[in-house]
Amino acid sequence: MARERIYLFDTTLRDGQQTPGIDFSVEDKIAIAGMLDEFGLDYVEGGYPGANPTDTAFFAEKRTNLAAFVAFGMTKRPGVSASNDPGLAGLLQARSDAICFVAKSWDYHVQVALGCTNEENLECIAESVKAAVAAGKEAMVDCEHFFDGYKANPEYALACAKTAYENGARWVVLCDTNGGTQPPEVRAIVEAVIAFGVPGHCLGIHAHNDTGQAVANSLVAVEAGVRQIQGTLNGVGERCGNANLVTLIPTLALKSAYNTRFETAIDAERLTNLTRLSHAFDELLNRSPDHQMPYVGASAFATKAGIHASALLKDPRTYEHVPPESVGNFRKVMVSDQGGKANFINALRRRGIDVAKDDPKLDLLISIVKEREASGYAYEGADASFELLARRTMGTIPDFFSIDGFRVMIERRFDSHGRIKIVSEAVVKIAIDGQTLMSVAEAEGPVNALDLALRKDFGKYQHEIDDLVLADFKVRILNGGTDAVTRVLIESTDSSGVRWWTVGVSDNIIDASFQALMDSVIYKLMKNRQLAGKIAAE
Amino acid sequence: MARERIYLFDTTLRDGQQTPGIDFSVEDKIAIAGMLDEFGLDYVEGGYPGANPTDTAFFAEKRTNLAAFVAFGMTKRPGVSASNDPGLAGLLQARSDAICFVAKSWDYHVQVALGCTNEENLECIAESVKAAVAAGKEAMVDCEHFFDGYKANPEYALACAKTAYENGARWVVLCDTNGGTQPPEVRAIVEAVIAFGVPGHCLGIHAHNDTGQAVANSLVAVEAGVRQIQGTLNGVGERCGNANLVTLIPTLALKSAYNTRFETAIDAERLTNLTRLSHAFDELLNRSPDHQMPYVGASAFATKAGIHASALLKDPRTYEHVPPESVGNFRKVMVSDQGGKANFINALRRRGIDVAKDDPKLDLLISIVKEREASGYAYEGADASFELLARRTMGTIPDFFSIDGFRVMIERRFDSHGRIKIVSEAVVKIAIDGQTLMSVAEAEGPVNALDLALRKDFGKYQHEIDDLVLADFKVRILNGGTDAVTRVLIESTDSSGVRWWTVGVSDNIIDASFQALMDSVIYKLMKNRQLAGKIAAE
Repeated sequence: MARERIYLFDTTLRDGQQTPGIDFSVEDKIAIAGMLDEFGLDYVEGGYPGANPTDTAFFAEKRTNLAAFVAFGMTKRPGVSASNDPGLAGLLQARSDAICFVAKSWDYHVQVALGCTNEENLECIAESVKAAVAAGKEAMVDCEHFFDGYKANPEYALACAKTAYENGARWVVLCDTNGGTQPPEVRAIVEAVIAFGVPGHCLGIHAHNDTGQAVANSLVAVEAGVRQIQGTLNGVGERCGNANLVTLIPTLALKSAYNTRFETAIDAERLTNLTRLSHAFDELLNRSPDHQMPYVGASAFATKAGIHASALLKDPRTYEHVPPESVGNFRKVMVSDQGGKANFINALRRRGIDVAKDDPKLDLLISIVKEREASGYAYEGADASFELLARRTMGTIPDFFSIDGFRVMIERRFDSHGRIKIVSEAVVKIAIDGQTLMSVAEAEGPVNALDLALRKDFGKYQHEIDDLVLADFKVRILNGGTDAVTRVLIESTDSSGVRWWTVGVSDNIIDASFQALMDSVIYKLMKNRQLAGKIAAE
Repeated sequence: MARERIYLFDTTLRDGQQTPGIDFSVEDKIAIAGMLDEFGLDYVEGGYPGANPTDTAFFAEKRTNLAAFVAFGMTKRPGVSASNDPGLAGLLQARSDAICFVAKSWDYHVQVALGCTNEENLECIAESVKAAVAAGKEAMVDCEHFFDGYKANPEYALACAKTAYENGARWVVLCDTNGGTQPPEVRAIVEAVIAFGVPGHCLGIHAHNDTGQAVANSLVAVEAGVRQIQGTLNGVGERCGNANLVTLIPTLALKSAYNTRFETAIDAERLTNLTRLSHAFDELLNRSPDHQMPYVGASAFATKAGIHASALLKDPRTYEHVPPESVGNFRKVMVSDQGGKANFINALRRRGIDVAKDDPKLDLLISIVKEREASGYAYEGADASFELLARRTMGTIPDFFSIDGFRVMIERRFDSHGRIKIVSEAVVKIAIDGQTLMSVAEAEGPVNALDLALRKDFGKYQHEIDDLVLADFKVRILNGGTDAVTRVLIESTDSSGVRWWTVGVSDNIIDASFQALMDSVIYKLMKNRQLAGKIAAE
């Protein structure tokens, strides 16, 4: 029996914009739209052209190749004709394939927010949909507060949904805007909509996570007949977030409760890109990744307990609900006081370092890692620093240079025209083969100043780091307070295109940056001599 | 019709111990057991006495007054009698009211992990339960991997559950140990267990969050007849976490889908302590709180969009799924570039600044906020900086002092004993009433050095900032790369206990910190003169 198609609609760039702490620039939106398009989603809702300058600029061009590009906006205002409503005109002009209108479907909102009659609202829905269809766009309607609206006045909510459908909407999306609807209620109400005459293949679900059940509500709606799911990357969205597509997509693909009856555009091969997509999104926005996120989190397939770890190696299916590789993740057996040596040896082997189980330096390395992890080092995100530490402990790293010290001076003052000027000056002092080298450089920020100073006179290694580029810089304060432990991660790359992360930890943010920078340079020197092991590509 | 009682079983101290990054000391466990007991949960599972020294010490005394104190451990080993099994003896001796045995219920695990026959495993379950009952303990059995075990060999899984029940277990808990079971499967399997003869009032559910549905699975199990829910505070637990009791408890209490039929020990009054409990747990473990956690998160009742904000003030039920006060939380309305004028006027009024809708300075303020937010300022998280900006624009802020400049020097060198030493020195230059004041100070980190320098000589304001404390510090790099725009947020407090956030943005991280620091000091001076408006408490 043929499987039914479930369409995936991403609203990261529209509803996700409401997330506290998130503010997309046009460049951010272009990059994210590209990621979503490349991953294979069906619809990408880009924002609300006309509502703010960023979105208006974003919709000046179509930003996807494969996915349908969707503009969001309100239905026309009551008392104004469709052709005379400037908001609607803005939507029609936007370079999108589809328009998603948000419409009131709770009579109380019609009165309080719109200040018109129930019938006038239905007319607004009808005319807006017709205008979009006439302009050659795919029309969809988000029925806002649908479930609460149905509970308050079921006939009116149903009428809103049906009006949208009958006037040519390809999709009528039932929105749990307040996020409080429970799964059995979602099921019953979706069934009522279908019974009323809006067929399931035209219905969508837009769930929010206010009772922790946005994913469950989306799946229940699909079981009840809905065929479009709206959600966001990593579940971003206002309050408690939207339905997390990164959780829904693999659940639909890998669980027999669904994959025997349904399919999406994300087949097994595309699914292996999931972890990378989720991480790339967090990195672009410099958001702390949720290590415990289902499927893609760093801890999603991580186990502490020794018992699990040994049985795991025999048959992972007894402990893993899906193979981590299916979503592009990998199994982690973690270093901790419950972990065994076997875990460590595997971690080292992955980096090309072979160690015997009874090598005393292995115990030394394990204890150093535990101690450092307790003080803030995160070797999870800093492969190169871990490898450097391992090689130093095992005695397999050459002494390229020693660090005598550095000094950074940052000054804010007024220039001769009375404008504020910020300058950073760095002095770096190292020793190569017993000879001291000392250089000074200036830049806007302290880390770049340190980097430039080092490059000025690097003795016999001078040209070895010419193609070393510091690509990214992340800061996390670990214990709170202004003298807390700061962890700095620097991402580096060179002409080979390989990327590596190094970490530095200190009470002092500049010193933490300096440590990460030095590790990056040393790693580059090792890499040039092919001493660096296989690095997991980011 | 009388409501049925759902029992709440907390396993934060046992299953929650497996959370990456969590390691409870005995003192931690005592404190948390006290919190759980005081909040009103029915069962507190404290750990595994005999498995490690911390847990053995923890069970030397009963640690709860009202809640049943539960010891966890394995069923007796196959081939050994109950009276001769030292692990079992350790469990019986622990100062607990109840023992929760973890038993294999998937035949594959019986073979691979235990290495005994299916029948021997049933005997282990029976004898362990009988021993606990004979010792006067309440006996319960966690049927590990129950749902996967049922799918592999339904007869055997059912036999395990029934054996536990028939030998005197008060509770038979069905565990979704791998976390991959879907809600319809949970329902069907629970119904099968009840049909097989283990009554629902003796059944419990222990769900994991590997497909983001631990809460939904727990609720579905209750609907199918289960009467005990196992979960943790804030959903901690290995991999993707356990079922989050902080989400389940208010959902059961406040949603008519459940509260007409079910009740728990957490009545409306106790429920108002929920947010405090959740935050206290995070603070004790120094965990970053999840701002988007349902019900209790800082953003759970926060809204950005202008339209919502104005209608909200009229009738919150149209936008909030439950009243925030019911769980001890409160409503937050935030500033952003999506706000309309009404939103802004309310934001100002909340801070004691009254502005007329047609005041031209209001338009100026709105455009400054939008422009600054586009370059990185986040006024959402920085109430005080927003208020300062508003007052400066409206012309109602006194010129306390002017900033001539600063200089920060950070040095890493070796001290006379050859140890690495990091020092930050800051010079701050300000002018008060035309007189220049210049001070220098030293500290580990640059921001603290700037703070100390300012306090050294603050002219006529000298003692006004004595009780000003910089409590927290957050850094975010906005555009990536090492010279990217840095946003710094500083949280300050004083002897009144009120907390406020200020923000600074610059290409240079130290300068961004300096801006946020200056705003904090100016805000403090305004607050001392009662010029600062009402601040939403953190």
